[in-house]
This record gives sequence, structure tokens and C-alpha cells, in this order.
Amino acid sequence: MSWRNSEMTRGDLTERLFDLDVAAHETNGTTVPARRVPGIYWSPAGGAERLVLLGHGGTTHKKIDYIVDIAERLAARGIASLAIDGPGHGERADAEWTGAPEEFECAWRDGGGTAAVLADWRAALDFIEAEAGARPTGWWGLSMGTMMGLPVTATDERIRIAVLGLMGGWGPNGPDLERLAPEVSCLVCFLVQWDVEFVHHAASTALYTALGTPRKTLHGNPGAHAAVPQFEVGGSVDYLDRYLR
Amino acid sequence: MSWRNSEMTRGDLTERLFDLDVAAHETNGTTVPARRVPGIYWSPAGGAERLVLLGHGGTTHKKIDYIVDIAERLAARGIASLAIDGPGHGERADAEWTGAPEEFECAWRDGGGTAAVLADWRAALDFIEAEAGARPTGWWGLSMGTMMGLPVTATDERIRIAVLGLMGGWGPNGPDLERLAPEVSCLVCFLVQWDVEFVHHAASTALYTALGTPRKTLHGNPGAHAAVPQFEVGGSVDYLDRYLR
Repeated sequence: MSWRNSEMTRGDLTERLFDLDVAAHETNGTTVPARRVPGIYWSPAGGAERLVLLGHGGTTHKKIDYIVDIAERLAARGIASLAIDGPGHGERADAEWTGAPEEFECAWRDGGGTAAVLADWRAALDFIEAEAGARPTGWWGLSMGTMMGLPVTATDERIRIAVLGLMGGWGPNGPDLERLAPEVSCLVCFLVQWDVEFVHHAASTALYTALGTPRKTLHGNPGAHAAVPQFEVGGSVDYLDRYLR
Repeated sequence: MSWRNSEMTRGDLTERLFDLDVAAHETNGTTVPARRVPGIYWSPAGGAERLVLLGHGGTTHKKIDYIVDIAERLAARGIASLAIDGPGHGERADAEWTGAPEEFECAWRDGGGTAAVLADWRAALDFIEAEAGARPTGWWGLSMGTMMGLPVTATDERIRIAVLGLMGGWGPNGPDLERLAPEVSCLVCFLVQWDVEFVHHAASTALYTALGTPRKTLHGNPGAHAAVPQFEVGGSVDYLDRYLR
């Protein structure tokens, strides 16, 4: 676990890259090999007493524009944030992957899928807590950010609140999502895009229904998968700022 | 159309009762007889440049506690509001009706149903506009408040924004709701209670899906029909205040 020598400043925000060394592990009979997981940590100039983990979407990476946008919005509320590349994504992607959606499932699976996700994010939160102390922690992640975030939220009791959505119990870890949804016990704001091409909104609302927590709210809006309205993006940051304690 | 001699003050709020004389009319081959429709108008002390119509729920009436609560919250934003008794409800109810839910459908139908609703609310808005001038106008009404509000919003182009919900395309005017939903073209915030005993949330989300407007948003929460969370009640007033222009 180590910081890279590359601190950068964006306005009042400090951005630092790091690498996690995650040991090989066996989960449900499958061995996930040892791996290096690159991450990024954003902290506001005045320090932060709260932290949000940011899960990027499929075919993107830890530093995609909308993730940086959320990091900046959170920093403006005095909240630090952290992102890592998901399985098979970003700096972990096969050099030959062009980001074509039809290869997404391969990238996810070859990168270790849910089992890798759980170990990687636990390592990331352990690392930052060792560096900066334990703080009230939340999750923000849609689509593949929910494929990662729902399992993490269900199994890591340090997560107190989560913005999830754009996902149903389908895709490469659909069964994991359906199995773990009842274990989610923290506050959840769940976003649904009503007119998504490749998943009917009924699949997303079914996953919301399955969440075990009584402290959940669903926001649905018309439009395509990537067309989450700006008022919901802003609203999701308001939600974390208001309830993350 | 006339004011009753009964002005009342609640803090900064003035409350006035009125009666509408609505003439008999024939709609789709059915004659709705002439009737007197009692109403109530709330205005903030400093006057109001915006107006919201408040539709009460089934088995209640124009002055039920939660309607007065919304009127007070709106007045605090400088917004006037108005409510009338729905078909067969409040002062229009049969003296023998105890408010038992199983007689709700009879009361609604005997009071003229959707045809009466459309004429009654048009008369109410005409009356207030004649008295206080035309202003940007919205709707707030859940459950039977949507059985009234969806048809009104779909057919009266003076309504620019509506808070609707707790209703699907079922009940005594279900076919009217399904037929008119695609005609709704204004902003809509649609509330759904996820665990309602007598209507599955899928019926409510289907009615949301059918709304013609692209400017619609859905908020879903766990709990029973009457257990809309207070943050949604407050949020619905914020929504009207923010977007009613």
C-alpha cells in the first residue's frame, strides 16, 4: 500500500494517487490472484471529517469526469472521497480492451468480479483509515458503481449511507446483488432511469424492493441510462451531506 | 358563486369558505345534476402571486388536517391555496355515510365521479381567478387527490405543475386515469408508497410510466398508504415552490 509521488491540486482539492497490493484469496471455491489496485484520494483543503467511496460505471475508470465532478461537489461540503479502478477497468484493464461494451462482462469477470470487489474496497478503506483515521463513510456509485457498491455496503458495516441505482438483479453479478440486497441495512437513495435501453425499470425497482433497509428512498426519472438529470446528481450529494453522520 | 360570512385567521393565514353553484351537464351520455360545491381558500397575509389546488384523499374532506398543513406550508412560501369537497365527500356526503372505506366507491360515483370533478374544479379555479386574478397554478393531491388531480391536470391547461401519487390505474375512475395520463404535459412529482396494502407499487409506477410529460420525477418510499414520510411532504412543497412559475 503506497502513495504515488503525484500530488495534484484542483482549486481547494488535493488529489493523490495510491496503489493497493491485494493478496490472493479464495472465495466460494474460486481463487482470485494477487493484484495491484490503483486508487485516488481527494481531500478538501481544510481537511475532512467524513468520507465517501466513489464507484465508477462500466467501461470507465476511477478518474472519469463525472466521478471527479462528484468528488469536487463533496469536497465543497468538506467531505473527502476515494475511488479505485474496478475489476478489469482503468489501469487494470487489458491493454487490448478498447472499452467496447460487449467486452464489459469479460473484463469484470477476468478482474475477479464480486469477490475481488469486496477485497479491493476493504483494502482501500483500510488504507485510508490507517492514513487519515476512521470517519463516517458513505458510498456513491451507479450502474457498475452499484455492482460494486451494493456488495460493499451489504458486507462492510463501516458504510452508513449509500447512493445506488441504474442497476437490477442482472448482469455478471446479478445473483450476488439479489442475494446481498436483503443484507443492506443502512440509508439508501436509489436512482432509476425509466427508459433505459438494456434494462427495464422494473428490474431496477425490483432490486430496490429487495433492499433490506427500511430507510430507503427511490427516485425515478425519464431518460436513458447515462441521462441522470443534473438535479438528481446535485440531490445525491445533498442527500449524502445531509444524512452522513 | 359566493363567499360565506366566515373569515378566519390562522396566524398569518386567512381562511375563507365559499360555495360554487355548478349547473347540470351531460358528459359521455351521463347527466350530472346541478349541485352546490363547498370550498375553502387560504391566502397568506401579504397576498400571493401563485396558487395551488389541494385535492383531499378518499373518505376525508377539504379541511382535513394534512390539507390544512400543506396550505400552511405553502402560505409560508407566499403561495395561496384552495380546496373543495370531492364527489360525495365532506359537506357533500350523504348524511348516513360514516366514512367507511367500503362505501367510498358509492360516494364517489353518486357524487358524479370524474365528470363532476372536471366541472367542479374548473368552476373553483374560474371563481378564484375572477376574485383574485389569474396566477401561475399548481396541483397537490394524493390518492383520491390524484383521482381528481390527474384528470384536472390533463385537461385544464392553467395547471403548470402537479404533485400526484399513491394511485394506479384502478379504482372507480381507473380507466379515466389510464386514458388521461398521456395527456398530462406539465411538470409532475409522483409519490409512491412501496408497501400499500390495497395497491401494489407496480400499479402506481405503471401510472407514472403512462404520464405523457417528459418532465416527471418519481419518489418511492417504504411504508403504508398513509405513511408518506415527512421529508417527502416537505419536499413536495419545496418542489412546488421551486418550479411553479
